[in-house]
Amino acid sequence: MLSQLQKSYLAGFLDGDGSIYAQLKPNPTYKYGFQIAVYVVLFQSQKDRSQFEKICSLIGLGYLRLRKDGILEYIIGKIDSIRIFLKMIKPYVILKAEQVDLMLEILDKKDKIQSKEDFNSLAKLVDSFRELNYSKKRKRRTLTP
Amino acid sequence: MLSQLQKSYLAGFLDGDGSIYAQLKPNPTYKYGFQIAVYVVLFQSQKDRSQFEKICSLIGLGYLRLRKDGILEYIIGKIDSIRIFLKMIKPYVILKAEQVDLMLEILDKKDKIQSKEDFNSLAKLVDSFRELNYSKKRKRRTLTP
Repeated sequence: MLSQLQKSYLAGFLDGDGSIYAQLKPNPTYKYGFQIAVYVVLFQSQKDRSQFEKICSLIGLGYLRLRKDGILEYIIGKIDSIRIFLKMIKPYVILKAEQVDLMLEILDKKDKIQSKEDFNSLAKLVDSFRELNYSKKRKRRTLTP
Repeated sequence: MLSQLQKSYLAGFLDGDGSIYAQLKPNPTYKYGFQIAVYVVLFQSQKDRSQFEKICSLIGLGYLRLRKDGILEYIIGKIDSIRIFLKMIKPYVILKAEQVDLMLEILDKKDKIQSKEDFNSLAKLVDSFRELNYSKKRKRRTLTP
């Protein structure tokens, strides 16, 4: 069980350099032709690996992946894990508060799909992630200086 | 006065997407030929400006600057402000704990320079920031997906 201070730290970390997103992936084996993929990801440079691993093990809900460009991703991809994580940090999140709410709404609706209409209304919610996450320009960062 | 939870949030934010650095800048008007520039910077995409401004005004120790690439920087550049900010969040910082300690050491020594030797030992500390902040590869990030 994490302390309030740890949850608040993680909320700040996610706000600073994390990502919450959902996307529709065409997949003919799924009933409505699409899979809904959901993720919460924290990023860090590989050189901070040991310390970053501490933070990840504190969370204990995802897995680490090293990208080819040397960035470590801590990926929380299971629905139950995302729900646990987001509910835990929700009171402390500032910048990504809308994404947290939207993701929790999507997860709830995902469990209750019973018709094509249900699926379509969920698909709209998933699409609205794009607008929340991206402005006109793709986000690209380099450190100063 | 910030609460412990707010300080912990800011520590997470800095660990996720902030930068602490010092550099020597050649400047003939300074006694030892160099100016020691020190910064703490928080980054965010411009599209989150209003929320990011909230966080910055919570801190109240720096100023906002919009880079040409659309990234907002909240820059804490005054020595006293850096000291206040870092001492405040120090108990909660994980990834950048070494940088916090190193910067506080640099600021203390900077106040006490009395000789060329003092300056040289300080310059070495400043140089060690480079190793802490950069691995072989320059840190570059794009969001997933």
